[in-house]
Amino acid sequence: MSSLTDVSTYALTEAQERIQQDLLTALDAFAIPEPLKGAVYHAVMLGGKRVRPALCYATAALNPNQNAAAVRRAAVAIEFIHCYSLAHDDLPCMDNDLLRRGQPTCHVAFGEDTALLAGDILQSMAFEVLGSRLFDQGAAVDAPIVLKQMQILATATSKMVNGQVLDLQAEGKHVNQEQLENIHRNKTGALISAAIMMAAVTIFNGTDQAIPKLREFGLAIGLAFQVQDDILDIIADTEVLGKTAGKDQQVDKSTYPALLGLEQAKEYAETLHNQAVNALAYFGDDATELLKITQFLLNRKS
Amino acid sequence: MSSLTDVSTYALTEAQERIQQDLLTALDAFAIPEPLKGAVYHAVMLGGKRVRPALCYATAALNPNQNAAAVRRAAVAIEFIHCYSLAHDDLPCMDNDLLRRGQPTCHVAFGEDTALLAGDILQSMAFEVLGSRLFDQGAAVDAPIVLKQMQILATATSKMVNGQVLDLQAEGKHVNQEQLENIHRNKTGALISAAIMMAAVTIFNGTDQAIPKLREFGLAIGLAFQVQDDILDIIADTEVLGKTAGKDQQVDKSTYPALLGLEQAKEYAETLHNQAVNALAYFGDDATELLKITQFLLNRKS
Repeated sequence: MSSLTDVSTYALTEAQERIQQDLLTALDAFAIPEPLKGAVYHAVMLGGKRVRPALCYATAALNPNQNAAAVRRAAVAIEFIHCYSLAHDDLPCMDNDLLRRGQPTCHVAFGEDTALLAGDILQSMAFEVLGSRLFDQGAAVDAPIVLKQMQILATATSKMVNGQVLDLQAEGKHVNQEQLENIHRNKTGALISAAIMMAAVTIFNGTDQAIPKLREFGLAIGLAFQVQDDILDIIADTEVLGKTAGKDQQVDKSTYPALLGLEQAKEYAETLHNQAVNALAYFGDDATELLKITQFLLNRKS
Repeated sequence: MSSLTDVSTYALTEAQERIQQDLLTALDAFAIPEPLKGAVYHAVMLGGKRVRPALCYATAALNPNQNAAAVRRAAVAIEFIHCYSLAHDDLPCMDNDLLRRGQPTCHVAFGEDTALLAGDILQSMAFEVLGSRLFDQGAAVDAPIVLKQMQILATATSKMVNGQVLDLQAEGKHVNQEQLENIHRNKTGALISAAIMMAAVTIFNGTDQAIPKLREFGLAIGLAFQVQDDILDIIADTEVLGKTAGKDQQVDKSTYPALLGLEQAKEYAETLHNQAVNALAYFGDDATELLKITQFLLNRKS
C-alpha cells in the first residue's frame, strides 16, 4: 500500500500507522494469560483497513483543539469492538471462515474456545480503554464526555449484533431494499457512525448543528461502505481481498448487487457517496480529512 | 423457596423479586429482533440465585440516601454480564452443558449462533443500561459516578474472561492453592466484588475507609462463594443443583475439595466467611443486609 501515491490512500495509511501504534500500546497495558493473549493480539494486530479509527481521527480534525486523548481512546475502543465482531463472525457456528486478512482466522490459529474468549474480552477491554487514563499525559478526565462516548459505543455494539441476526435471518430469503438497508444500518453502519460520533462529542455539544450533519454523514458513509463491500465481493479476487471472495453468493446472502444488479449497485454507492460529501459541506475546508477518507472508501479495491 | 422461613433466605428472595422486575423492565426497553430476543430473555429470565444483584442492593443499604437508580442499573448490568458468561460457558466449544437451572441451555434451545450472539449483546446491553436514564425518574445523572461504575464493570468482566482461560488451562493439571485462588479471584471473585463496589461508589468516595473494607469483604465473599460451589458440586444432587452435579470431577477440574479434601474445604469456606464478617464490623448495624447474604451464601444448598 505504501507504493501507491494517491493522496486519499496516503491519508488512510497515516491513520493506520497511528492506530497500529495506539492499539499496541493499549494491548500491552493489559495482563492477559496465554493462550488468550496470543489470540487477542492475533485478532487485533493482523491489520485491516482501520476505517473506523481513521474516521475517528478525521472527525477530530474538524477542530484542532479537540481532546486528543479521548479521541485516541475512542479509536482504540472502536477497533477492539470491530475485531471482537470479526473473531466471533468467523467462528464455525457463524460464517465458518478460515481466512481473514490473508491469515488463518482466530479460531483456526487458536481453537474455538480461545477465539470465543478473545472476542469476549475484546469487548470489555474496549470499555476499559474508553474509561481509562490511557494517552492522557496528566490531563483531567471529562466524565460527561467519556460517558457519552460509552453510551454511543454500547448502543452501536448492540445494534451491530442485532444487524448480524437480521442478516442471518435474511439468508436464502428475498429481502427488499428497505430491509437490506435496515440490516446494514445496524450491522456495519452503527459502528461506523459511532466512530464519527465518539470523536464528535469531544468537540461539539448537542445543540450544535454539527452533530446532525455528522450523523447524516455517518449514515451515508456507513451504507456506502457496505454497498461497496458487496460489490467488491463480486468483482475482486481472493488475493486482493485477503478473504474468500464470492462468499456472499455461495451462502446465498442478500446483497445490493443481487438486489439491484451490479451496475445499479455501483450507481447507488455513488449516490450515497454524494450524500456524504454534501453533509460535509457545512464544515467547509475543516472537513478535508473526512473528504479524503470518503474518497478512499469509494475507490478502494479491497 | 418461598416456603422456607429462614431469615437469610427471605432476604435473598426479596432481592430476587426486585431484580426480576428490574431485569424485565430493562429487557423490555430494548428492541431486539427474533430469534435473538427469545434467546436473550431465556438467558436472563430463567432465574438463578441473583447473588450479584442482592450484594449490590445490600451494599447500597449501608446508606439509605444512596442513588437508588444508579444502584438498580448496576444490579441489572452486572446480572446481564453474568448471564452472558453463562450462555458462552455452556457452548459446545466450552463446557458443552445441556442443562442450566433445570432448563435447556441457551444453545440447546436456540442454536449455537443465536446463543453466541445473545451472550455478545448482553455484554453491550449491560453497558447501555449502566449509561442510561433507566429508573431515574427525572433525577440528574452523576457522570463521574456512572463512569466509575463502568470502569469497575469493564475491568471485572475482563478479569472474568482471564479467569476462564486460567481455568481451562488448569484442567487435568495439578495446581496449588495459590494458583487455584488466582483462577477464582478472576473467574468469579471479580464480578462479585464488582457488584459490591458498583454500589459502594454511589455512597462512599475514594478517601473513605469504607471502600477498602468493602474490597476486603468482596474478596473474602467471592472466594467463599466459589469454595462452596465446589463443595456443592460434590455433595448436592443434580435435582437440587439445577445443573449437572459431579461435572467438575468428570472433566478433571481443579477444585478446593480435590486440593484440600472435602472437610478441609468446608473449614476453608468457614474461615473465608469469618473474614467477610470481620470486614463488615466497621459498618456496625448498617451492614445487617450484607451479613444476611453472607450467612445465606455459606448455608445454601444449590
